[in-house]
Amino acid sequence: MALDPKRTVSELKELRQLTSDENGAQRVAWTDTWLAARDWFRGKLQGLPVEQHYDAVANNWTTLPGESKKALLLGGHLDSVPNGGWLDGSLGVLASLEVLRRFAREYNGRPPVTIRLVDWADEEGARFGRSLFGSSAFAGTHSIPADRGRTDREGVRLEDALRRCGVEIDRIGDAGRERQDAAAYLELHIEQGPVLERAGLPLATVAGTKGVERHAVTFFGQEAHSGSTPMGLRRDALAAAAKLALEIRPIAARHNDAVCTMGSVKTFPGIVTAVVGRCETALDQRHLDPAILAAMHHEAIEASRRFAEEERCTVEWSRIWSIEPIPFHSELIRLCQESVREVAAAGPSMPSGPLHDAAEVSRSGIPTVMMFVQSLGGISHNRIEDTKEEHIEVAVSALDRLASKTAAWIRSQS
Amino acid sequence: MALDPKRTVSELKELRQLTSDENGAQRVAWTDTWLAARDWFRGKLQGLPVEQHYDAVANNWTTLPGESKKALLLGGHLDSVPNGGWLDGSLGVLASLEVLRRFAREYNGRPPVTIRLVDWADEEGARFGRSLFGSSAFAGTHSIPADRGRTDREGVRLEDALRRCGVEIDRIGDAGRERQDAAAYLELHIEQGPVLERAGLPLATVAGTKGVERHAVTFFGQEAHSGSTPMGLRRDALAAAAKLALEIRPIAARHNDAVCTMGSVKTFPGIVTAVVGRCETALDQRHLDPAILAAMHHEAIEASRRFAEEERCTVEWSRIWSIEPIPFHSELIRLCQESVREVAAAGPSMPSGPLHDAAEVSRSGIPTVMMFVQSLGGISHNRIEDTKEEHIEVAVSALDRLASKTAAWIRSQS
Repeated sequence: MALDPKRTVSELKELRQLTSDENGAQRVAWTDTWLAARDWFRGKLQGLPVEQHYDAVANNWTTLPGESKKALLLGGHLDSVPNGGWLDGSLGVLASLEVLRRFAREYNGRPPVTIRLVDWADEEGARFGRSLFGSSAFAGTHSIPADRGRTDREGVRLEDALRRCGVEIDRIGDAGRERQDAAAYLELHIEQGPVLERAGLPLATVAGTKGVERHAVTFFGQEAHSGSTPMGLRRDALAAAAKLALEIRPIAARHNDAVCTMGSVKTFPGIVTAVVGRCETALDQRHLDPAILAAMHHEAIEASRRFAEEERCTVEWSRIWSIEPIPFHSELIRLCQESVREVAAAGPSMPSGPLHDAAEVSRSGIPTVMMFVQSLGGISHNRIEDTKEEHIEVAVSALDRLASKTAAWIRSQS
Repeated sequence: MALDPKRTVSELKELRQLTSDENGAQRVAWTDTWLAARDWFRGKLQGLPVEQHYDAVANNWTTLPGESKKALLLGGHLDSVPNGGWLDGSLGVLASLEVLRRFAREYNGRPPVTIRLVDWADEEGARFGRSLFGSSAFAGTHSIPADRGRTDREGVRLEDALRRCGVEIDRIGDAGRERQDAAAYLELHIEQGPVLERAGLPLATVAGTKGVERHAVTFFGQEAHSGSTPMGLRRDALAAAAKLALEIRPIAARHNDAVCTMGSVKTFPGIVTAVVGRCETALDQRHLDPAILAAMHHEAIEASRRFAEEERCTVEWSRIWSIEPIPFHSELIRLCQESVREVAAAGPSMPSGPLHDAAEVSRSGIPTVMMFVQSLGGISHNRIEDTKEEHIEVAVSALDRLASKTAAWIRSQS
């Protein structure tokens, strides 16, 4: 029997049944529901000629040894955010399982290259605020000391939650051993945005993940009485912030595929009887081109200073987090575009705004590409997250073709 | 001995010493510190030919009976906000005491009209969120049922806090009896704004209190992922709110002496990785002319709808609170201007943005006027609140002259 994409749909539904409630998926990493999902997944391996183990950070590796030790990695993540969707992460895992089954059957258990399926541990960082946990340990970009002291909302320490799942925080760097013989990494994921639905296309090739500049931008003015302070004598920190909230849009518009978001504004004292004396905002800027990302960041700083001056305020910037753009592998991008074209309408090549485990894998030097399948309404991290079943099926087929082409490419590189 | 304005300054300092800590004045109504301030004040009455009592809402009345029962009321409030200033409210009480003393001496204990000093209970509403408490009971504009269930931050009920101070909530309407024979009301207060300091003038006549339209304005857009949602497909509730935050300034600028303030902005979900789906703002608009106030309110509604439409959002308005403009008495305004001119440079006639007990008294039909003295830096409700001592002294002199002129005017009305 050949590839069975319908089985992927039914297995995704089975997982949803097992690990969701009326609010959505509850497969938060390091919880019992997540462990139940992983046990369920292990059950699916019965009868396959594979070796399965958890690495030092609890990434779950399923290996189908091939004629060559060189390994094609296929992945995703079973963990979800609280009240999450049924496809985010799990589609990658279960589509990869179907592709691995096809390799096993087609080559009587011994494909030309080794096929490895990885279920990354804690992609979402939903409980401890550190996303890409397992893949960054694999990539060696993880910093253990910074994470040791993290706690969840109930005050449980990351270190203790990990130990309960068999992970010793001092040893998670050992997960880097799994990089040995890794020759390529493929990941299928839902888009989590509205671009493909708007374009009426099922699939896209992902050119890389956008770099992110994320900053706290705080304006300082002068708190004053709303009733007794004439307009002309005010130093209104909110006015300066409002100008920046609007200016980030022309900044983004000057650069293709750029996004700039002010996601949070806090006013102090924050009462209706006082002019805002301090306004704290959070700004997120993303682009695939590092030069453009740097330019956008610079333009926002300049604008904020101009607005602060206009409003007789001051402004301070403080970096929350940043990551450089991570372009995927050009040859694998080409193979992905080819695979999409073979099973569906030619899809675009687009950058991913959200980060994915594939970004960490790519950073570690392993040739990587991702494929997106259309998300309905562009909605994710929500129980109403959905994708048409026919699109899930065509995505499994496209991933399968991409895996074959990539296996051949790995062989050709030897 | 004639009027002694320096005594007012020294009594204000005595009160500060007694009722402040390193964070400022702590004379919050219905607390022990407030009761201590009132006891201290009663001690100042020894030797004066006055009758003193607390009315049904705990306003403190000190009466110097005159040849006529017609009464000239002079007032202020000893209560403060937490960490408040030394002059807000207490200047009015202690300047009035000095004026009452002068009347008692000048007329050997029997002035031509009755002089009554009132220390209003709970002007600030700092503990239970209901300002002008005592003066609104006096004016008969108080609504008892709405306030019965109020609690402070520790969960103490207003009703219980009042009972501890001898006030039965069901009887506070009886305070209206004090309106009998009231012929005029005068109140001296610090400006709490920067206008007089900017103009280099010590005193102003207050033409009335501005009306207030205070509304919650909420914009509804669509929460979306900051990374995966292209700029053109967003419905950003913050963008619509930012436009309104800026537009209230031209709205105010079209009308003399208008103020419009957006004092609070809250973003939901309020995280940097999501476009703002809902933005709650609070808008305060004030003017002395009811037609202009209504026009400004209308202009803000129209602008908010236009911005919501531009951003493909919706907007909802909900009234938080409003009060009509309260113009003071024209003849008393004239007498106040005359009194200011006699002791200092001619001051402006200006509306008060903040509300005062005088607004409630005026609403009840008693001819009323207020006088402002300069505030340093325009700052109030803060321990650094201050006024030059020479300005306090000239203010006491001006209030004294105004009281004499008003007493004569009351006699002329009989």
